[in-house]
Amino acid sequence: MALTIICQNKDPKPWVEELLRKDPSLDIRIWPNDGDCNEIVGALTWMHSEGALQDYPNLKWASSMGAGVDQFLNDAKVPAHIIITRLVTDQLAESMFEYVQTAVLYFFRQLDAYRNDQIQKVWRPLPAPSKLNLTIGIMGLGKLGKYLAEQFSNDGFQVVGWARSQKNIHNVTCYDQKALPDFLAKTNMLVCMLPLTEDTENILNADLFAQLPKGAHVINVARGAHLVEQDLIDALDSEQLSGACLDVFRTEPLPKAHPFWSHQNILITPHISSQTDPREVIPQILENYNRLQNGEVLLNLVDLERGY
Amino acid sequence: MALTIICQNKDPKPWVEELLRKDPSLDIRIWPNDGDCNEIVGALTWMHSEGALQDYPNLKWASSMGAGVDQFLNDAKVPAHIIITRLVTDQLAESMFEYVQTAVLYFFRQLDAYRNDQIQKVWRPLPAPSKLNLTIGIMGLGKLGKYLAEQFSNDGFQVVGWARSQKNIHNVTCYDQKALPDFLAKTNMLVCMLPLTEDTENILNADLFAQLPKGAHVINVARGAHLVEQDLIDALDSEQLSGACLDVFRTEPLPKAHPFWSHQNILITPHISSQTDPREVIPQILENYNRLQNGEVLLNLVDLERGY
Repeated sequence: MALTIICQNKDPKPWVEELLRKDPSLDIRIWPNDGDCNEIVGALTWMHSEGALQDYPNLKWASSMGAGVDQFLNDAKVPAHIIITRLVTDQLAESMFEYVQTAVLYFFRQLDAYRNDQIQKVWRPLPAPSKLNLTIGIMGLGKLGKYLAEQFSNDGFQVVGWARSQKNIHNVTCYDQKALPDFLAKTNMLVCMLPLTEDTENILNADLFAQLPKGAHVINVARGAHLVEQDLIDALDSEQLSGACLDVFRTEPLPKAHPFWSHQNILITPHISSQTDPREVIPQILENYNRLQNGEVLLNLVDLERGY
Repeated sequence: MALTIICQNKDPKPWVEELLRKDPSLDIRIWPNDGDCNEIVGALTWMHSEGALQDYPNLKWASSMGAGVDQFLNDAKVPAHIIITRLVTDQLAESMFEYVQTAVLYFFRQLDAYRNDQIQKVWRPLPAPSKLNLTIGIMGLGKLGKYLAEQFSNDGFQVVGWARSQKNIHNVTCYDQKALPDFLAKTNMLVCMLPLTEDTENILNADLFAQLPKGAHVINVARGAHLVEQDLIDALDSEQLSGACLDVFRTEPLPKAHPFWSHQNILITPHISSQTDPREVIPQILENYNRLQNGEVLLNLVDLERGY
């Protein structure tokens, strides 16, 4: 019985080291040189290629190496009997919150405008910002989205939330699927935390931007496919939106020729909003591996039909 | 009996409006057209010129229109009998904390590096930052400095503090004047919140920067004269420091020709870290005006000898 690590754009070594530090008896392999495929019962994957899981006849379980599970959703050839799980930790939520908090404060305290003034060597104090004039709108109220909504509310921001079903979060006004227009009308700092599904793909589009108060900001830390890229550029250029902070893109790495790179109102980071520290999540992976061997129900199951 | 407002680089109108809204019976003047100088017993000032207070024979009290009192410290001709006060409000502290929090998170989450990568169109995820590797060092533990230290500690950051005398702040390791080297050795995010005195002028210099761990960041929200400007540029260019966020300067507005504007590791804002909202502070000014008329001790007294 062995675990294999199938990852691209991520270094597997710290994961192997931490797994073996916790349990030296483990048999850990690294794709593509992972030996006898028949011995492998579990896989940790990050950006695996379509059909990759079909190579392991005895594979029972695959875990994402992060919170996202796009690699499974984008793979039509995941054998139906395989149990899929993801990572959910306070550290991931905390890392995501820190990132979004950084972006919110960056826009709230007008650093985007002051950066552009600095380039022009212009000294131009702007009117003092007030939290009374800012409402953060969180799209997607799963574990991470709910955590962010609570944290921002605790920090004294006005927060509204939107999710498919009606949610209840202390001090956060929540809207359900059909109340999207009401949610958007209140939101001047939009944070997309949605799972990527057929319903949410392309949801950040011209029609949605037009329903936000003029001058709103958009932060996307979910998936690149949530955003219609040209619509964002148009909304910024028409000043319907004031700025955007993007951590995820349809194509990653973002191609050199992409217009986002040089847009003065777009802040780009290379998919680092929630970085997984193996030291933090290995216990969770080992717990699931134990549960698998004992025939127990695994933690943080993913429903590929539902999409998250 | 009248109050006059003596300010430069600040619009007095919202102050007059709010004063009269609170008490329509007040006699409020605006320098330089403030009528009979003999009638004026109190002055609200911001960047007044040296000797300006000598023009009012019956002046008993002058209040800064902000938290800082440089205008009095820089004025050798403040009549000795005049009571000097400053503004201290939660809103000022909160505004200052938000600003420093924004700068800390900007550096902590590596937005400075990602901004420079964006200019080069480079996609380069950096290793995940951890609060375990960051210690915020607050220089100056007056009301504002103590508030910041407490807030950052509550937010899960490691915080150390330095002040002339030994302070005690929960969860914050405090160092006194002679222990400056110990404080600096621990600090990789230095926040200057000091009052400007003979002892603290030019304190942010090459010798101090050399005692910080390599790659530290510096945030100055106190006064421009705390910083030896060329020493900062040298420390950044030698990579002893990674970046600086400056809200205050020796000359404000910062002159167009100043090298700070175009330094890629310096973030400039135009003295907006703590903006005073007249609606918030007028009650405090009126309280002191009442106390003055009743012969009571005023609030938030400034000791010009001590310098704050």
